[in-house]
Amino acid sequence: MTSSAAEPRLPNPSDVEAAAARLSGLATATPLLHSPALDRRCGGRIFVKAECLQRTGSFKFRGAYNALAQLDSDARRRGVVAYSSGNHAQGVACAAELLGMRATIVMPRDAPRIKVANTRSYGAEIVFYERDREEREVIALRIVAEHGAELLPPFDDARVIAGQGTVGLEIAAQAAALGVRLDAVIAPCSGGGLVGGTALALSAQSPGTKVYAAEPEGFDDLRRSLAAGSRLANEPGRRSICDALLATSSGVLTFALARRLLAGSLVVSDEDVERAMAAAFDDLKLVAEPSGAAALAAVLAGKLDATGRTIAVVLSGGNVDRPAFAQALGRA
Amino acid sequence: MTSSAAEPRLPNPSDVEAAAARLSGLATATPLLHSPALDRRCGGRIFVKAECLQRTGSFKFRGAYNALAQLDSDARRRGVVAYSSGNHAQGVACAAELLGMRATIVMPRDAPRIKVANTRSYGAEIVFYERDREEREVIALRIVAEHGAELLPPFDDARVIAGQGTVGLEIAAQAAALGVRLDAVIAPCSGGGLVGGTALALSAQSPGTKVYAAEPEGFDDLRRSLAAGSRLANEPGRRSICDALLATSSGVLTFALARRLLAGSLVVSDEDVERAMAAAFDDLKLVAEPSGAAALAAVLAGKLDATGRTIAVVLSGGNVDRPAFAQALGRA
Repeated sequence: MTSSAAEPRLPNPSDVEAAAARLSGLATATPLLHSPALDRRCGGRIFVKAECLQRTGSFKFRGAYNALAQLDSDARRRGVVAYSSGNHAQGVACAAELLGMRATIVMPRDAPRIKVANTRSYGAEIVFYERDREEREVIALRIVAEHGAELLPPFDDARVIAGQGTVGLEIAAQAAALGVRLDAVIAPCSGGGLVGGTALALSAQSPGTKVYAAEPEGFDDLRRSLAAGSRLANEPGRRSICDALLATSSGVLTFALARRLLAGSLVVSDEDVERAMAAAFDDLKLVAEPSGAAALAAVLAGKLDATGRTIAVVLSGGNVDRPAFAQALGRA
Repeated sequence: MTSSAAEPRLPNPSDVEAAAARLSGLATATPLLHSPALDRRCGGRIFVKAECLQRTGSFKFRGAYNALAQLDSDARRRGVVAYSSGNHAQGVACAAELLGMRATIVMPRDAPRIKVANTRSYGAEIVFYERDREEREVIALRIVAEHGAELLPPFDDARVIAGQGTVGLEIAAQAAALGVRLDAVIAPCSGGGLVGGTALALSAQSPGTKVYAAEPEGFDDLRRSLAAGSRLANEPGRRSICDALLATSSGVLTFALARRLLAGSLVVSDEDVERAMAAAFDDLKLVAEPSGAAALAAVLAGKLDATGRTIAVVLSGGNVDRPAFAQALGRA
């Protein structure tokens, strides 16, 4: 038990198991869905881990709760601070509410309205910043200094990564229950907590399964970093509809996991993402936010050849405003 | 085992149990979802049975497969005929494909495109009719006479009702696993197979739970029939966006079940339904077709007071065309 921020040790598979025990009865065991129509679109056998049905509408609750639940009572009293474009915000706010903690969230002013409203609904205080002009880390650290609160990073934290890894643990168990051997799993990637944790879980549970990240065009730092062998950042000034996948670079821990465990990173365009949102609508009856659809987009756009293969994709979140969703349906 | 059409006996709870055994591993055990945001909108504790995630995108697969799986090999060889606005069509087509049977479906020419395309994708032959000018039952019976095929009615059949009842069986088990006592369950109602089967299952599993139908304005034959004590039909010429809830009247079996087991029927407007579709989008990340959202609409519109109560609603299907969905999001 510790109240310190990110520790410099990598999480291991048993941390994911411990996270699953902490989350039992609190996180939704989201279904692993299958659709013949989606198979026809992709040319392979596709399973979709519906994390949009998770508490708070994205996988982020898992990591946030797993981290905050390990704080001692002194640390819990001091509260938690986080910076997030919205899904980590909701995850932290919801976990803090469950644990009786005060939460302060630093969010970009252009975050989707639904993410702001939901974060507030869990009782969190929101501090806005301008995405292009201010450093969210600096604002968060100022609040930490003032309140002595715990800063919970969005991805570069062993407890957060282990929590997100429970997605991979569930995929492995669900595939086994269906008698399915997974050739590959793809998860959306911003800082790499979800895909890193998922790869960690699968390395123990299903070592023959290759794990890939999916990144938006202009934010493919992980793909370039894996090629270079060291952490690279994204160029400033790029745009993507994937508002939750805009981290500048992966973290120290997440990049170490990615180098060791990932088979690669697949890059998708905004158009690929909108088509995947429409496919999730038509074939799965699921609401995917743009970022949440990135892994499905990778397989639909043929970034990983699905022919004759069995692939699970993580549909990681569904927090999207109505007009943006209607627009994606209309364009795709 | 019999190959005859609807038998004049009412199904009983053990028929629902037998249906569940037949459907095990074939039907999706759809999740019972909960959302604090939805609770706030309704003023009570609301659970949503996500049947839009069912195979074929609606609950109809359950009843269709349960009926066709009981046919002997001679009857299976002769094939199956059904008439349907689209969800029973998909259910029958998918079940027939799984059982190696030929399926012919009589569908209205104005059925949602997604329902037509999906029905065809399971290998069924489609015969179109004009909703206002032709009698679908007559067309179906002509095909039956020509081919000697089994006619599978959309609701007034003990095997179909028992299959749909597995929705209720799962709700009871899922609520029990959550430690939740359900005050009420609401299900959309056209001919009454889903709500009748659900009430049948709950009468055995959770006898303290009241079961209500939800019907669209202009198609509230069940509400009026329950008041009159005999089966009444809907007036011709009315319109509703609930394309799957336009049956002229309930059936002999379904009305007998409704009189015995239902607490009442709640009537919702098209506007109530569109608001419910938008709420399912915002709070549950689920795609609801208009008919599928009718029960949620009833509780959101206060047709059943949710204050201080725990209510499960069946979100019965998600087969809706993209433009219709975008329009509902924009208007609600």
